[in-house]
Amino acid sequence: MKTIKIALAQINPTVGGIEGNVLKICDYIQRAREKKSSLVIFPELSITGYPPEDLLLKRHFIGDNLEALSRVIENTKDIAAVVGFVDRKDSILYNAAAIIQNCKMIGVYRKVFLPNYGVFDEYRYFRAGTETPVYRIEDINIGVNICEDIWYPEGPAKYQALAGAEVILNINASPYHMGKAHLREKMISERASDNKIVIAYLNTVGGQDELVFDGGSFIADTTGEIIARGKQFEEDMIISEIVLDGLSQTDKKHISPRVSPLEEEVYKALVLGTRDYVIKNDFKQAVIGLSGGLDSSLVAAIAVDAIGKENVSGIFMPSPYTSKESREDAYQLSKNLGINKIIEAPISNIFEAYLKNLRAEFKGLPDDKTEENLQARIRGNILMAFSNKFGWLVLTTGNKSEMSVGYATLYGDMAGGFAVIKDVPKTLAYELCKWKNSEEGRAVIPVRVLWKEPSAELRPDQKDTDSLPPYPVLDPILKAYVEDDKSFEDILSSGCEVECTKKIIEMIDRSEYKRRQSPPGIKITPRAFGKDRRFPITNKYRSY
Amino acid sequence: MKTIKIALAQINPTVGGIEGNVLKICDYIQRAREKKSSLVIFPELSITGYPPEDLLLKRHFIGDNLEALSRVIENTKDIAAVVGFVDRKDSILYNAAAIIQNCKMIGVYRKVFLPNYGVFDEYRYFRAGTETPVYRIEDINIGVNICEDIWYPEGPAKYQALAGAEVILNINASPYHMGKAHLREKMISERASDNKIVIAYLNTVGGQDELVFDGGSFIADTTGEIIARGKQFEEDMIISEIVLDGLSQTDKKHISPRVSPLEEEVYKALVLGTRDYVIKNDFKQAVIGLSGGLDSSLVAAIAVDAIGKENVSGIFMPSPYTSKESREDAYQLSKNLGINKIIEAPISNIFEAYLKNLRAEFKGLPDDKTEENLQARIRGNILMAFSNKFGWLVLTTGNKSEMSVGYATLYGDMAGGFAVIKDVPKTLAYELCKWKNSEEGRAVIPVRVLWKEPSAELRPDQKDTDSLPPYPVLDPILKAYVEDDKSFEDILSSGCEVECTKKIIEMIDRSEYKRRQSPPGIKITPRAFGKDRRFPITNKYRSY
Repeated sequence: MKTIKIALAQINPTVGGIEGNVLKICDYIQRAREKKSSLVIFPELSITGYPPEDLLLKRHFIGDNLEALSRVIENTKDIAAVVGFVDRKDSILYNAAAIIQNCKMIGVYRKVFLPNYGVFDEYRYFRAGTETPVYRIEDINIGVNICEDIWYPEGPAKYQALAGAEVILNINASPYHMGKAHLREKMISERASDNKIVIAYLNTVGGQDELVFDGGSFIADTTGEIIARGKQFEEDMIISEIVLDGLSQTDKKHISPRVSPLEEEVYKALVLGTRDYVIKNDFKQAVIGLSGGLDSSLVAAIAVDAIGKENVSGIFMPSPYTSKESREDAYQLSKNLGINKIIEAPISNIFEAYLKNLRAEFKGLPDDKTEENLQARIRGNILMAFSNKFGWLVLTTGNKSEMSVGYATLYGDMAGGFAVIKDVPKTLAYELCKWKNSEEGRAVIPVRVLWKEPSAELRPDQKDTDSLPPYPVLDPILKAYVEDDKSFEDILSSGCEVECTKKIIEMIDRSEYKRRQSPPGIKITPRAFGKDRRFPITNKYRSY
Repeated sequence: MKTIKIALAQINPTVGGIEGNVLKICDYIQRAREKKSSLVIFPELSITGYPPEDLLLKRHFIGDNLEALSRVIENTKDIAAVVGFVDRKDSILYNAAAIIQNCKMIGVYRKVFLPNYGVFDEYRYFRAGTETPVYRIEDINIGVNICEDIWYPEGPAKYQALAGAEVILNINASPYHMGKAHLREKMISERASDNKIVIAYLNTVGGQDELVFDGGSFIADTTGEIIARGKQFEEDMIISEIVLDGLSQTDKKHISPRVSPLEEEVYKALVLGTRDYVIKNDFKQAVIGLSGGLDSSLVAAIAVDAIGKENVSGIFMPSPYTSKESREDAYQLSKNLGINKIIEAPISNIFEAYLKNLRAEFKGLPDDKTEENLQARIRGNILMAFSNKFGWLVLTTGNKSEMSVGYATLYGDMAGGFAVIKDVPKTLAYELCKWKNSEEGRAVIPVRVLWKEPSAELRPDQKDTDSLPPYPVLDPILKAYVEDDKSFEDILSSGCEVECTKKIIEMIDRSEYKRRQSPPGIKITPRAFGKDRRFPITNKYRSY
């Protein structure tokens, strides 16, 4: 029986942390060796972390990455390994995989299809490879390729299969969005059965600024069946003995279930993205402005799951417009989550001090958004004061619906280091809260938070619906315009009301300047704000 | 005598403003016709403005651009024209030029070399063209190509010359940086003489978010001599009768001098960038926090030149740490510039109100950057209050030296819509002030501002040199690290001190999170912050 025992090292490297990444890689090589694997593979650019962005423009960074690779090679006695690294030849860079066997590099594969859309900028750094070799490891013909390469039916996997490859190792740094894990398995499964080859799909895992890599690596056999699957959203080592002389496989021991429902998947992505942003940026604690509303409650729950309740503090900053219910809900939430502490910092006297100094200049003018924004900005300043004094990372609480239409105050509620639910539409935020409560079997997020009407509480009796349509009406329009690039006419034809749609599109277009200054947040949809959507601020185009 | 009268329409389109851009193009066609030109050419993507960024992903935007082109075509009776637009075939987009003659499109040129470095993302949107045709207009063989195409000696211009082209029309949207105009003329001049062809180099002009297009279009004859040149930093129409049956040209009437010295060039770029950001975003007035220091003085002078003294207001926001000299200098500057008004808004009582509310939580802890940042943030809030109340755009005053090392307060002095001198190192800011005073023949910027020691005045007797080396030491290190990607060792070998260099690199690396939330500012160096330098926030790489 012809078999090979492959280890998929689903690791969480850190961008730029070459030293730590090499230690981790060597550790996993050792673990694979101990488990009698003859081949261990690592994700795309695992030596540098992904995406290294403009670090790649530094000659010495590339040099350090090559030197690190040579240390990995030294650590491969009696085992084969595939490791993602940055290859350089004549000053040209390649997104590459080193094929290593028993302390020797036997080949380098260079990524052929370089993604340059969405969050990707690979043509900025890399040249495309042109070769699709097949290597012989342990009497097995093996083709290696990288991420995007496998998405093309007429791509490297097919050429490698035609050249006799029995197993394809596809190494990835594939960012998460909702439902993508399912898409990947479907596509790889087709690719495997179409070419009658085994495909090992290895993804990296971890958070990197706006991106979360969700892991969930797996192996599809020659019929397209998934015969092994790793965990999602955490490191894992998937070891599988692949049988190659029959159609089917025997070893199905390592099949982790896919995370579901979708709410759990998104929630776990947010937890991982938050945890890694905090840890990889050397923070230990975080602080959240708790308003008693849904968004800050959700962010607090995520933060507690990400870094522990003892590391999360809340600040409640009441004004005369703050309701009794908001106070009760903020304190109840803190109690339910068991967070480190909740601090009360009222803003009224500060607000009065500003108004006093502005009185002469603003004389005779009615109150407007100026006074509303001022309150939000005082709160932002207080949060930042705690951040500066105690080294706490401020987590902002704005959701995607607000970020889309600019229903948020720059330097106010937008002030902070990381915007946890920036890509979560309000309607989904509700679902995540409900899921969390049902998962916990108790109302961690107080029930009233889920049913009371959303309000910014910046003027008497204010409601979100004073400025916006109800979220179930708003969110589909936002998705159509922001994520799907639908035209005004397309959106109307799906049944939306003319004036409402026009107003919303105008709000989206006009708030680009705010988004440009917002902190990064975790991408969970096919198109997030940030690197994923690059819009001019100066822009006279009107779709309507 | 074989001649052709060409008009180079150096226009200032607006991104997304297709309607207005078409009107402008048709107006220039008419002017060219009146001047008896037989050919008028327009810049790269002049129909959409450059760069349209992710507007290009909207199908209806591309459709509107094509419809606009057809209206331009209708307006070309008895004249030929070359117009930059977005071509689409089978859903694939091309950065293209329409070659139009007497109301008919006779050809489409598709850009071959797509820049995807620095501020450019053209592979994100476009596919590269593969053909380099030659057109016959008025018995002259003409090759058209676009921007980057001309930078390659073995590129389209050479192929077109070999195919018999006598004149090359190279249309551009080439962003400004210091000294680039000189580089362009040198390169084009070589390309012309190498291929013994006439090259008309047309650049767009105007500001677009971070970018300034500096115009300065010109024509090089077959010997490489510049025989016509347009203005820099403003719209212009360069009309030249080109003689093609001899080696030399006759018509040298239209040669505008190149702007010099470098200080004037940079100053004019900043004025144009600021003016267009204000106007194209529908603002009328701007406001600046005047501290009596060099940076805010320079920004105020630029703002006055950009939008008029009657449209610029200053706010002076003293604290107990504000010196008498700062107050005098701020008021003197306002008077010298004749700005609309200077408003005084003290911050002490507001600062006290914050401290009172924070006292219990901060008890027993020493004052630190928390209290300093708080003062800066109160000032930011006051500026934003005036912005909200009166619709004034807040111009921030931070320079590149500060932005590099993070010597600036997020949501404080970094709060505002546009960061005029974000890419101007402090040492250059001094030179710009000196140039401005000498240009005006009087100390518009008070002389004391130029010689007193820089201070943020956020604590007693604070000086910039408490935290930073003197700017003449700092700026070369910043340039080496930020703009030239030099390694730690490279920087040391140029004579910098070890500990100082290490500290500065660390400060640069660690303040990426601040830069990510800063407003856009005008690129004037080969590498600015913003789209030009894409750095991970989460980044464990240390160069030292």
